[in-house]
Amino acid sequence: MSKTNPGRYFEDFAVGDTIIHATPRTVTSGDVALYTALYGSRFAVQSSDAFAKTIGYAKAPVDDMLVFHIVFGKTVPDISLNAVANLGYAECRFLKPVFVGDTLSTTSDVIGVKENSNGKTGVVYVRSTGRDQTGDVVLEYVRWVMVRKRDEASSAPDPVVPELANRVAPDGLGQACPAILNSGWDYDLSGAPHRFSDYEPGERIDHVDGMTVEEAEHMTATRLYQNTAKVHFNQFTEGQGRFGRRLIYGGHVISLARALSFNGLANAFHLLAINGGRHVAPLFAGGTVFAWSKIEETAEIPGRDDIGALRILTYATVDQPCAAFPGRQEKGFDDGVILELDYWAAIPR
Amino acid sequence: MSKTNPGRYFEDFAVGDTIIHATPRTVTSGDVALYTALYGSRFAVQSSDAFAKTIGYAKAPVDDMLVFHIVFGKTVPDISLNAVANLGYAECRFLKPVFVGDTLSTTSDVIGVKENSNGKTGVVYVRSTGRDQTGDVVLEYVRWVMVRKRDEASSAPDPVVPELANRVAPDGLGQACPAILNSGWDYDLSGAPHRFSDYEPGERIDHVDGMTVEEAEHMTATRLYQNTAKVHFNQFTEGQGRFGRRLIYGGHVISLARALSFNGLANAFHLLAINGGRHVAPLFAGGTVFAWSKIEETAEIPGRDDIGALRILTYATVDQPCAAFPGRQEKGFDDGVILELDYWAAIPR
Amino acid sequence: MSKTNPGRYFEDFAVGDTIIHATPRTVTSGDVALYTALYGSRFAVQSSDAFAKTIGYAKAPVDDMLVFHIVFGKTVPDISLNAVANLGYAECRFLKPVFVGDTLSTTSDVIGVKENSNGKTGVVYVRSTGRDQTGDVVLEYVRWVMVRKRDEASSAPDPVVPELANRVAPDGLGQACPAILNSGWDYDLSGAPHRFSDYEPGERIDHVDGMTVEEAEHMTATRLYQNTAKVHFNQFTEGQGRFGRRLIYGGHVISLARALSFNGLANAFHLLAINGGRHVAPLFAGGTVFAWSKIEETAEIPGRDDIGALRILTYATVDQPCAAFPGRQEKGFDDGVILELDYWAAIPR
Repeated sequence: MSKTNPGRYFEDFAVGDTIIHATPRTVTSGDVALYTALYGSRFAVQSSDAFAKTIGYAKAPVDDMLVFHIVFGKTVPDISLNAVANLGYAECRFLKPVFVGDTLSTTSDVIGVKENSNGKTGVVYVRSTGRDQTGDVVLEYVRWVMVRKRDEASSAPDPVVPELANRVAPDGLGQACPAILNSGWDYDLSGAPHRFSDYEPGERIDHVDGMTVEEAEHMTATRLYQNTAKVHFNQFTEGQGRFGRRLIYGGHVISLARALSFNGLANAFHLLAINGGRHVAPLFAGGTVFAWSKIEETAEIPGRDDIGALRILTYATVDQPCAAFPGRQEKGFDDGVILELDYWAAIPR
Repeated sequence: MSKTNPGRYFEDFAVGDTIIHATPRTVTSGDVALYTALYGSRFAVQSSDAFAKTIGYAKAPVDDMLVFHIVFGKTVPDISLNAVANLGYAECRFLKPVFVGDTLSTTSDVIGVKENSNGKTGVVYVRSTGRDQTGDVVLEYVRWVMVRKRDEASSAPDPVVPELANRVAPDGLGQACPAILNSGWDYDLSGAPHRFSDYEPGERIDHVDGMTVEEAEHMTATRLYQNTAKVHFNQFTEGQGRFGRRLIYGGHVISLARALSFNGLANAFHLLAINGGRHVAPLFAGGTVFAWSKIEETAEIPGRDDIGALRILTYATVDQPCAAFPGRQEKGFDDGVILELDYWAAIPR
Repeated sequence: MSKTNPGRYFEDFAVGDTIIHATPRTVTSGDVALYTALYGSRFAVQSSDAFAKTIGYAKAPVDDMLVFHIVFGKTVPDISLNAVANLGYAECRFLKPVFVGDTLSTTSDVIGVKENSNGKTGVVYVRSTGRDQTGDVVLEYVRWVMVRKRDEASSAPDPVVPELANRVAPDGLGQACPAILNSGWDYDLSGAPHRFSDYEPGERIDHVDGMTVEEAEHMTATRLYQNTAKVHFNQFTEGQGRFGRRLIYGGHVISLARALSFNGLANAFHLLAINGGRHVAPLFAGGTVFAWSKIEETAEIPGRDDIGALRILTYATVDQPCAAFPGRQEKGFDDGVILELDYWAAIPR
């Protein structure tokens, strides 16, 4: 029997299963520094212990997307090693702040399976849960992927397709955000004067700047997350594949877009939830990523008069500046669009 | 009104203004490790808590140039986003040691403005001040940049050009350096036997080694400093520009030259001041950086019998070894020279 | 007299000499994060304070190979700056766990010299010792290198060739490993169910995955270790040399192979000793590294019923998947093989 992990095939997932993922990870200030160096993020709350303390955190929290990537990375060897495609995300909620020194681990519950009509693949739905060393949940999200069958002749399971919310409702937001002392918020240090009431639904913001991605950068990031998906790392194999290139981890694009979005959303300091995400096209090294955002909705959070929630659609593009707001069309997306991300962010009121 | 920072134009600077820059930053051991990994610096004081304690520091101080880059990076969105050229530095003094855990922030005072005769641009002089979380000044320097006018028809301000010292005087040096216990200095561990009295004015030292720079490296460094200057990151735009390439942050060259200078200046452990710096030519990825130094002056520091000051001119070159000491000529510089840096370094007596 | 380190030549080594190497280094969580980001290692003990505590460590120990690289890097300016070839390693033993905050320094004892018959070079044998800030030995190993003579006319020293063990004996293993509480070992979190008794001598494991190496990555790693060997960094000079390329530090290949070996050896959590290593062929950027391992021997460690020792031969290849187990042949090695590493690893019983 091989001691090497072959990854799960479609037949290996049954609704109700819980999968415990390997390699718990203590988050360090080294991880945080690398995250800054890889994306150039400038949000004051995550960058400065002093700023974070002044507004009500014990110290600077770890960037939400770094937490996401670490929690997500652990699921790859068990969920998506034989995946054909990463189909979507939903109901991603940040539930407890993570600080340097916390140890993160991940489990996944299989909540849906549906064989495809071709008999070769099926869709698997999992709800993945990231916990800290106390067992508290810091993050959960649903993800669905298309996975190969081991044996095309095996019979199809009863299809189970979970109902997923289009968006996290405002009363489900904010658990990972302590009470914010708005009197302590210094808008010079945070980089912009705009707060909750300054944003309007429908408003569009071009984040202007572009960031070119190198092979060494996306691989370094993806290894930092201990994400083992082969397509990101192995030019020998990928060079013979469909694209002839290493594919860049979709989460790398999300983090780039989030960092670029500082220019226009400087005070939207915390991801409350990710409602959905779509990797419209792959990104390869050498491409320059741009981004723009649309304010899709603004919402008060029940019980919170310190922060409001902005529902933001961020579009990332490659080699395509965003002054003209390239995005979704009736059929498909404008040229150059590689990401549509639908999320809630907290901002001071 | 756009929420995106358009950067200041020449008309937006008035003598007497103070600009508070965004994104305070807590320096971590992750930043320090990345700095080592990006430049390969080997100075014992900054590398070892044990060595630093033995000579009188509480623990290893953060490398002076890392402090400089972090303090400097914050000024870019406010000072030089619309800059045409970075013209010079002067009167840069290191005033308090920085340790892991300190939070740095920066303000800039506008101390000079002078419109150029073409009516399209002007020169802006700022004195930038880096402070730690207690409000103490850790670093200050003067910088002047050429900035575009928003409107060529706008009238010129009264010209103010500050008088700047050619060099920081020896009695202004040493504030960031605690009393050094020379009896604790281990010259085997520090890498060379040479101390203050071993260096002579006029002496020239070829630092021998060369370091090739990759795109991923200089971008990672520059993002680590949260420096947002567009020319370093955006191949899509720069590819259509004057050079067709991303420009490497000038500070990256300074840090490379300083790291190379260990071979010959191993005990010149601390930057006391930077008298001036000139980026003679741009550096692009793929170039190999070499360096050599001339001892311009040696000086006792009033009240200090533990350390002396070496005034050093370090020249960096690209694809040009330095055995022949390429440097400044009567008219301009020798081929291959990209940097002339004039600074004071502390060395044990 | 030049202040630049010219490196030692063959004549500069005498049996009985002890060389104190420069630049003690405090290991930080930043170094650990970079190590993870450069190789993607997933061993739970080194990744998680919580996991490490549960099995008997005070906290997560620093990866053994990171300790090796830091200890080794210090020796380069004194031992191998003028080396023609790195000939071998032996008797490498890990003797005390290293934790974040420890300061490492290195000394080397010259234990052998033998001039080559060509009169131009000689072989130098050193036993290098890494110590922490308390003076305790954390690591020792023997290395032999071929070094140029300064003067071909100088007379040959009496040859001394140390006797070196083919392998570290089992009773010399385990000092750096605390008593492991096997009841606390969570095989879900560690990534595989296999323990000591599951491995058989002669067993072969293909580690499956491949990792492409970029210039920025291997240079970043090698600078992190403060290893100054010129061939890794200087494209200007190397471009005119034998290969026309920068050579990748052999230790980088070892760390890549070790990280890949997680897939099949997930519970072989600690390097007890390195019996020998051979860099069969150079690696250059752009190559994709694969690896496989053969269980050469299994051994109980006298006095230890918590862990056993696997003696492992790991082969790394470039652009050559390892399903067919390319390795050593009667004469030389199969195509694509770049590393043969013979080591002992600890695994729970």
